[in-house]
Amino acid sequence: MKLALIEAQGLGIIRDDVVIDASAAVAPDAERTSQELIEAVIEDFDALSAPLRELEQNGEGRPLSEARLLAPVPKPGKIVAMGANYLEGTDGPPLPIWSFFKSPQAILGPGGTVALPPADARVFHHEPELVLVIGRKCRNVAPADALDYVFGYTVGIDVSGRFPVLQQSLFNKSHDTFAPIGPWIVTADEIDDPQNLRVRLWVDGQPRHDFSTSDMGHGIRECIAFISSVTPLLPGDLVFTGTNHQGIGPIQDGETVTVEIEKIGRLVVNVSDPLERRWPKRIDDEMPARIRRMIKEGTPPGGISAHR
Amino acid sequence: MKLALIEAQGLGIIRDDVVIDASAAVAPDAERTSQELIEAVIEDFDALSAPLRELEQNGEGRPLSEARLLAPVPKPGKIVAMGANYLEGTDGPPLPIWSFFKSPQAILGPGGTVALPPADARVFHHEPELVLVIGRKCRNVAPADALDYVFGYTVGIDVSGRFPVLQQSLFNKSHDTFAPIGPWIVTADEIDDPQNLRVRLWVDGQPRHDFSTSDMGHGIRECIAFISSVTPLLPGDLVFTGTNHQGIGPIQDGETVTVEIEKIGRLVVNVSDPLERRWPKRIDDEMPARIRRMIKEGTPPGGISAHR
Repeated sequence: MKLALIEAQGLGIIRDDVVIDASAAVAPDAERTSQELIEAVIEDFDALSAPLRELEQNGEGRPLSEARLLAPVPKPGKIVAMGANYLEGTDGPPLPIWSFFKSPQAILGPGGTVALPPADARVFHHEPELVLVIGRKCRNVAPADALDYVFGYTVGIDVSGRFPVLQQSLFNKSHDTFAPIGPWIVTADEIDDPQNLRVRLWVDGQPRHDFSTSDMGHGIRECIAFISSVTPLLPGDLVFTGTNHQGIGPIQDGETVTVEIEKIGRLVVNVSDPLERRWPKRIDDEMPARIRRMIKEGTPPGGISAHR
Repeated sequence: MKLALIEAQGLGIIRDDVVIDASAAVAPDAERTSQELIEAVIEDFDALSAPLRELEQNGEGRPLSEARLLAPVPKPGKIVAMGANYLEGTDGPPLPIWSFFKSPQAILGPGGTVALPPADARVFHHEPELVLVIGRKCRNVAPADALDYVFGYTVGIDVSGRFPVLQQSLFNKSHDTFAPIGPWIVTADEIDDPQNLRVRLWVDGQPRHDFSTSDMGHGIRECIAFISSVTPLLPGDLVFTGTNHQGIGPIQDGETVTVEIEKIGRLVVNVSDPLERRWPKRIDDEMPARIRRMIKEGTPPGGISAHR
């Protein structure tokens, strides 16, 4: 099932090119924020799935093109992202597993505008990623059980400014609008194998990324197990599973970025930059090779510290 | 005023060695979590401060030693921490300003136990820090105005495992119990100059850190301005302002760690380690010198990336 948050309405179900109002199953409640609504749906889904499926099959819809969709998880409790998690055409082995946080305030919905900040970045890159929506609290879960904790999947972009110091680059992934997600959540039962999905990104129709989630260095199960060995994942938390940097390129004022993940959907966002900075409109000519070299040499970004 | 959260009671005011029940000013509400309670106090403080001051002066208290205090901000929306933010006996200049997030689930209250995880760290270190409790939403605030957004101050420890890869070390600062704070919040009006407070830490009575917040490379105002240029700070968010690594040392099973910040208070936590790993019980003999060298050379941890 495809679940969306519809502006000024609440929960909607997407069926082909229509959106079905799900208020009959999930009553609107003016006291409740959109985030509280989607968290309630996630937490009560065992009870809600039957009435929602009934609506999905028999409900009347209105054209999807007329609905304004919000980010399906507008204010997650936390966003955890995987760093350098693809093999990128190397034979591996993958770099050591690591994660970082993006600010929960960085979420942007479908059709929104990524606003490049005045921060003095060398460039701002798109990083298309499969995003997990966590369904149940998990802590120290084993990889074999990890998918049981995934409520569903959505499409995301880990918008990334590049700075001289790696840690600056990581924190600067948290600017407002730097975590576009959507357009909806596809519930986990619809995705037989999340580890075999094609991910593509275009800028103004120009092809950039085209990779499969089968290339992850640490698979989805392992990512969840790893994160949950450090901090609990809670219902509505998001996990950005990392990108394949081969295909990475700049985003800049006036552009439209489209990401499509097979079986999930297509997320479109715009870009604005009051400073109107310009970069070559093409795949980056340096970073893809550098990341590949890092993987081949086994040296993660930032290198090996003195704590070996 | 010193505001605390008291187990099975709600808001309390600390006056010398007694705790005064503040229920008369802030009615207990079983529907509300401790976090919702303290956020409501922070957001309504303009209206609440007069009745709370009246209670502080005239309320009857019971012995503080009999009260069980919770973390004063048990589930912050987010925790932002400053990296390598002290001059540490060098002439500076400071390293480039940078921040990272700790998991909001990592909070531990006073008297609690830091549980070392089985993760294969070289060592787990104490990092005593002045912690800011944000009072009002701020975004793109100027340094000159930044202190207006601080509700109060508390004592914190940024518990830090050291791993071969810097990014692993950063994410591993988010283990459960790795963000002890407390024992209470001292409201901002009581601290004339937060940039001139003595911070000390002991392990089982053995002195480790002894530094002043005057040694910060990027002062509190600048930290708030910087963070708010990336992501909004919201009421109840926490900012760990960084540590002076001179004095850093291991924590291990069975130890008691005490941090005292002048004019704020004394936070005491215990340490448990089911693996009973052992390290020399003294100030680390390598990291303090290494951090000093980094500052002198202007090379942040993880080095300068190819994005210069």
